[in-house]
Amino acid sequence: MPTSRLEAFSDGVFAIAITLLIFNIKAPNNTNHLVASLLRLWPSYLAYVISFLLIGLLWANHHVMFEHIIKSDRLQMFVNTLLLMVVAFIPFTASVLASAFRNGEGESVAIALYGGTLVLGGLCFNWLWSHAYRAQLMDDTVTSERMQRMTRRILFGPVAYAVGGIVGFVLPVAGVVIFGVLILFYWLPIPQRNSAGQKVGSR
Amino acid sequence: MPTSRLEAFSDGVFAIAITLLIFNIKAPNNTNHLVASLLRLWPSYLAYVISFLLIGLLWANHHVMFEHIIKSDRLQMFVNTLLLMVVAFIPFTASVLASAFRNGEGESVAIALYGGTLVLGGLCFNWLWSHAYRAQLMDDTVTSERMQRMTRRILFGPVAYAVGGIVGFVLPVAGVVIFGVLILFYWLPIPQRNSAGQKVGSR
Amino acid sequence: MPTSRLEAFSDGVFAIAITLLIFNIKAPNNTNHLVASLLRLWPSYLAYVISFLLIGLLWANHHVMFEHIIKSDRLQMFVNTLLLMVVAFIPFTASVLASAFRNGEGESVAIALYGGTLVLGGLCFNWLWSHAYRAQLMDDTVTSERMQRMTRRILFGPVAYAVGGIVGFVLPVAGVVIFGVLILFYWLPIPQRNSAGQKVGSR
Amino acid sequence: MPTSRLEAFSDGVFAIAITLLIFNIKAPNNTNHLVASLLRLWPSYLAYVISFLLIGLLWANHHVMFEHIIKSDRLQMFVNTLLLMVVAFIPFTASVLASAFRNGEGESVAIALYGGTLVLGGLCFNWLWSHAYRAQLMDDTVTSERMQRMTRRILFGPVAYAVGGIVGFVLPVAGVVIFGVLILFYWLPIPQRNSAGQKVGSR
Repeated sequence: MPTSRLEAFSDGVFAIAITLLIFNIKAPNNTNHLVASLLRLWPSYLAYVISFLLIGLLWANHHVMFEHIIKSDRLQMFVNTLLLMVVAFIPFTASVLASAFRNGEGESVAIALYGGTLVLGGLCFNWLWSHAYRAQLMDDTVTSERMQRMTRRILFGPVAYAVGGIVGFVLPVAGVVIFGVLILFYWLPIPQRNSAGQKVGSR
Repeated sequence: MPTSRLEAFSDGVFAIAITLLIFNIKAPNNTNHLVASLLRLWPSYLAYVISFLLIGLLWANHHVMFEHIIKSDRLQMFVNTLLLMVVAFIPFTASVLASAFRNGEGESVAIALYGGTLVLGGLCFNWLWSHAYRAQLMDDTVTSERMQRMTRRILFGPVAYAVGGIVGFVLPVAGVVIFGVLILFYWLPIPQRNSAGQKVGSR
Repeated sequence: MPTSRLEAFSDGVFAIAITLLIFNIKAPNNTNHLVASLLRLWPSYLAYVISFLLIGLLWANHHVMFEHIIKSDRLQMFVNTLLLMVVAFIPFTASVLASAFRNGEGESVAIALYGGTLVLGGLCFNWLWSHAYRAQLMDDTVTSERMQRMTRRILFGPVAYAVGGIVGFVLPVAGVVIFGVLILFYWLPIPQRNSAGQKVGSR
Repeated sequence: MPTSRLEAFSDGVFAIAITLLIFNIKAPNNTNHLVASLLRLWPSYLAYVISFLLIGLLWANHHVMFEHIIKSDRLQMFVNTLLLMVVAFIPFTASVLASAFRNGEGESVAIALYGGTLVLGGLCFNWLWSHAYRAQLMDDTVTSERMQRMTRRILFGPVAYAVGGIVGFVLPVAGVVIFGVLILFYWLPIPQRNSAGQKVGSR
């Protein structure tokens, strides 16, 4: 089977999950001291920005991955559904995170939950990728060097998110910083090199 | 008419219904004893996982079906709309199910409602399939053997879900287990056999 | 400009509006007398079914219309946005309708609001169609006979919905019945006739 | 990379954000004096209409822009995600705006927030456009004259929205009028001229 409908369905879930993040920011009912009320919501804005960049990133990585995966089978649809289940869970964890920081209670647990969810997402990406490799769903014109770079990058994900979750459990603010840095780092392009190892561009 | 926009519209409804499931899990307002508050939501997580795998499965089956159906007519659009009406109803039934298990009251009714909804969905799939057959909307290169396997599988759906609903009405936990097993079973690939009945792969 | 992204964007709005209808049905918090609580929601189920079939129908008509309209311009995008604004408003009017019937108060106003919204939607369809005709955005292989049949059908819409709204303002139940019948009638295929006026199929 | 999935994902976010606007209009629970209750919601209807036309417009402009941008890179996906983050934020600002006008308190702040959000959106459009130019992601058959007209139009956006926000901070009603006029102005077609400066059509 081709992957076009799988991509369309996934795009839909990513697009909905990312847009639903705004529902975690409730407009204040009382507009009397509106500036103060709006400023008090800062943990919600922060959770919104981080989670938006995160889901956007997961979408971008899914997109790049399916530039290389050109065929689909039943197991792949199942693993992709697991990945989407994690993606759709992120608005919930973002909401818990914002509540904890707003209340000043439970930040450790909230950030560990956030990190744990990302670890699960990273594992799904690894499963998708390794299954596509074993079941020969790949475009075989991809160079093995690029494949290895993709593989390393994908493997690195769950480890990095686990570190962020564990550090954040001890020191919540540090966890938020780590997630922010990781997300920006992952948004950087994957550099392309020619066979002599020289950079020839990026993608 | 071609089926491309019907598939795009259906993909949208499936993607939204599946993502909205997360709204049935309300983040705790009080983050004081956050671990305990989060654990107390276990029926919501269970309903989320089961219903996510279920809607993902219905999407996958819709996808496979429309690999074979290549033309569209008015009645098909109508029956497809009925199917989507059932799919979009699932988040409601999942919410009722989670509430009942959280409250420890009404589980029998909730699981019967859940099963009944799935029976309706299964009947819509049967109607879609038989209409496509009668109105010659099918790709005629499909082998009759594969058609029969698809037909049996589709016919089996409403019966199995009805059994799950009835058993669950008597013994709610057993109903949940049956639905879980059914969903995993249906996620298994449809084996392909050659004319001699030997497995030649799966799809 | 081609119409493909306009169709994709519209499909998205139709799909979301139709799926959001389920949010008008709130799962009962108290699952003690669950059967009774669920049955008491009947006006919500009715509003759900009617509005789902209605938005599905508007989608199907939009689909058929854009089988004939093959080019896009700025004004068409604007009118299409107006149409989508009406479509996205339907869940609100459906919610008002269900509340009024549940409370046994305000049914006349609620059904007039529902009918008025549909009239606006019908006018947008007429504007879309007549603009496409004047601005030559049409596929010119369509027979003028089919064009006329489409035009009559589209013109009939706002009139019929206005009648439903007015009758319903006087006698709410009659209005609901009229909307139900109209929606089912519109779901019927547009019969195709050859030049001698004989039916040759339907679409 | 081609831009097709980027467009599909963006279409999804635009479609969801625009449809979610309806959630800012809560159906009255009490249907006793329904006409009066419905009329009292006028600020919500106004915010709905303005924000719907606005997001529809942003979608249309995104659409026109990606008629010219035919290739995609990592930075473009990032900037596009920032733009979508702003778009998905609009329902929140629309909700604040409607609350402020309903309460008769905080209108200045609400309209400044609305304007500020639009300025951010305009800046993202400028970034998208200038990056596409520098990174040679453009279709090179576009005439430089059309490019300049597009560029001027895109540059004008944030300035105009900033003016609307500042005026509106002083005199809220004037700000709403300015936004309304700007949105209708931007919905007008971009006129096409031939090399002698004569209008030859519009797009």
